[in-house]
Amino acid sequence: MPIQKVLQKIVAKIKEGAHPSDLAELVDELNDQQRKELFELLSDEEAALIIQEMDEFDQVSLLRLLTKHRASSILKEMAVDDATDLLGELSPEEAKELLSLIDEEAEEIKGLLRYREDTAGGIMTTDFIALPEDIPVEEAITRLREMAPDAEIIYYVYVINDQTKLTGVISLRDLIAAEDGTLLKEIMLKNVISVPVDMDQEEVARLVSRYDLLAVPVVDEEQRLLGIITVDDIIDVIEEEATEDIYRLTGTGEVESVDLLEASVYSIVRKRLPWLIISLFGGLLSGSVIGTFEATLQSIVILAVFIPVIMDMGGNVGAQSSTLFVRGLATGEIEKKDIWSYFLREIKIGITMGLINGVVIALAASLWQWSRPMLGVVVGIAMFITISLAALIGTLIPMIFDHFGIDPAITSGPFVTTIKDVTGLLIYFYTATVFMKYLI
Amino acid sequence: MPIQKVLQKIVAKIKEGAHPSDLAELVDELNDQQRKELFELLSDEEAALIIQEMDEFDQVSLLRLLTKHRASSILKEMAVDDATDLLGELSPEEAKELLSLIDEEAEEIKGLLRYREDTAGGIMTTDFIALPEDIPVEEAITRLREMAPDAEIIYYVYVINDQTKLTGVISLRDLIAAEDGTLLKEIMLKNVISVPVDMDQEEVARLVSRYDLLAVPVVDEEQRLLGIITVDDIIDVIEEEATEDIYRLTGTGEVESVDLLEASVYSIVRKRLPWLIISLFGGLLSGSVIGTFEATLQSIVILAVFIPVIMDMGGNVGAQSSTLFVRGLATGEIEKKDIWSYFLREIKIGITMGLINGVVIALAASLWQWSRPMLGVVVGIAMFITISLAALIGTLIPMIFDHFGIDPAITSGPFVTTIKDVTGLLIYFYTATVFMKYLI
Repeated sequence: MPIQKVLQKIVAKIKEGAHPSDLAELVDELNDQQRKELFELLSDEEAALIIQEMDEFDQVSLLRLLTKHRASSILKEMAVDDATDLLGELSPEEAKELLSLIDEEAEEIKGLLRYREDTAGGIMTTDFIALPEDIPVEEAITRLREMAPDAEIIYYVYVINDQTKLTGVISLRDLIAAEDGTLLKEIMLKNVISVPVDMDQEEVARLVSRYDLLAVPVVDEEQRLLGIITVDDIIDVIEEEATEDIYRLTGTGEVESVDLLEASVYSIVRKRLPWLIISLFGGLLSGSVIGTFEATLQSIVILAVFIPVIMDMGGNVGAQSSTLFVRGLATGEIEKKDIWSYFLREIKIGITMGLINGVVIALAASLWQWSRPMLGVVVGIAMFITISLAALIGTLIPMIFDHFGIDPAITSGPFVTTIKDVTGLLIYFYTATVFMKYLI
Repeated sequence: MPIQKVLQKIVAKIKEGAHPSDLAELVDELNDQQRKELFELLSDEEAALIIQEMDEFDQVSLLRLLTKHRASSILKEMAVDDATDLLGELSPEEAKELLSLIDEEAEEIKGLLRYREDTAGGIMTTDFIALPEDIPVEEAITRLREMAPDAEIIYYVYVINDQTKLTGVISLRDLIAAEDGTLLKEIMLKNVISVPVDMDQEEVARLVSRYDLLAVPVVDEEQRLLGIITVDDIIDVIEEEATEDIYRLTGTGEVESVDLLEASVYSIVRKRLPWLIISLFGGLLSGSVIGTFEATLQSIVILAVFIPVIMDMGGNVGAQSSTLFVRGLATGEIEKKDIWSYFLREIKIGITMGLINGVVIALAASLWQWSRPMLGVVVGIAMFITISLAALIGTLIPMIFDHFGIDPAITSGPFVTTIKDVTGLLIYFYTATVFMKYLI
């Protein structure tokens, strides 16, 4: 599309009050040169609104197209938390240079840049409204009217004492419903739900979701109000963490940190390859189990036919067990105190599923090879043990990783696969060797 | 814990203004008899607040412990959307009986029960605030003060014309910031983002997340306002859909519809078993491929050693490809228009990863078996083709399912596994048979 046409479209959209996110989508269609031209024509405020809706990769590349001076003016217009996130994506030198060009907000941004990206501090904004305890309702409303355009969210008004400690919260609905003359401290809710600045973002999300909050205040050890986290950022966290869990559970690797559509073949391969290489050596290890039973296999080649089903079933049950446990931990459905009873039930489930599938495969194998009735018994026993162990291993390994503070989702890919392939094949060939004389 | 102690704790918690969700957690510790006793002591309103925070399974079993009369009084106090969801979990007879005991809200609930559970209509509430276009700001605020306690959310005020059609929206912050005397239609945002009542809940969630909304209005074909969906319900949808995707992608089955902690071994096995049985026959099908090459395997037993690595690698690459594609569709990162270019790049990625892993395994196999230099070549070629095809199949199958309106996540479990196991083993043994004379 020619730049003039896109421009016309964007100007028309701005006039009809389109959401910046729709404008960002139009920008997405443009190449670098066109983006540069377009952003030279937009005001700083318009540019900031659109950039906030773009993804990190596009934000960074766009910012690099502009002069440092222009880039810093746009950053100044962005929400403090978004500007901070964007600066965090740049090289330290670039970020420093841009920060030196921003005057007012620079201190706030520098403060925010100190916090780890995946903690409460890393996702909070400092655009919040805090009012003193002992002003009356009508004064609070007047002050809100003045401050409103600047703050991220004014549906909760936080109340602080003279040491700037968070002492209460009032929802805007309670504020407008209150009688004139009432002091804030008389109507505020004193039991404020707040989070420490170093809390993991996943835990913050669980809390906001549990208590149905629109925003949650962030405090330091002395309960001083540092910032707030709004529900729209929480939604992003929930989606990000779910994607991360999905990628880890399916052995996809750390692909969530690349742009799914625009990344190069090379950058995607680089993210996916490490787990594949681990998996490759895992597969060779499993193969070496078969190698050690070469003599058994040589006498009864038909045994090879059941290698896939033993591997697949162990793999599936292991994946099911890991997935349920890891997802249960992530959503908070499984808590620390429930882990042991959960584990015990999982073992019972494994044994039950092992029995059912063992009987089914035993019958199938016997039908397949009428002449070797014991083959069904061997395959059935191996299947029973493999599935029971897969359920145990699939739960136990993420439990151990979780205990040591490592994300349990990461254990579910090639690691669990290899362990249960090796055990499954060992059990299968060992059983076959024991029953050898009945099989030949 | 004795019931008296829990009661004391709960009364104390209510006094200090605890969140109902914390109270629900205490109730969780009680057995049925204790729950019954406790709820007899609570007011309808307290009971309703606590029940709203419990999960569906506990809600239903608790409601069944109470008399129909009591149950209906509590339902009356619940938010309309929560009451509707709970009634939807009961048998039609039970729901009908309880509804006949509820007077006022019964019509609203009946109306809501008509909509499918996973659509906008199924998750919306009718507790919203709509005001006419041509009243002044101060009158709007007065009306809000009267209505506020009843409505779910008053941060957005919806504006309707005399045919009750949705014509605009005003955020509470804009309302309190506006001059007295201004008419609502003068300050309202006319470009309201709304959703049709039959929109899929996943799509609603994407929209709310994209536009950072706190609530979204639901309309019928004539643009009449039927209800609103609030962001806390959207968070539940996002978590629910992510869990569903994770379970389907990992072949775990439809376990999301049971209570992870309290479900019986039997009910969990019933949910997990179907995919295992499919997987079992898939595994046998793969095994039958090996069976048809029995002669080849008989001459070169060592070929069996590479069965696991061929299967594992095909499985991993296929899972990666399916996962990235399905998750990309779910989060909206991949749109319909991008599908073909995405598919083409995925094929390039598959070929690249196939080449790298093919070379690695060829070297490993040659080192393993010095005496049979061609074994490495066979395994390498098979690996290259298997991985390239796995990337193709892993993307193509979910693409086809998605095209026909079936959730693509469901394809990733046993289906893709079987297809790529069968193709992988066919390729491997076929290649081996072709190169047979160099291998013996």
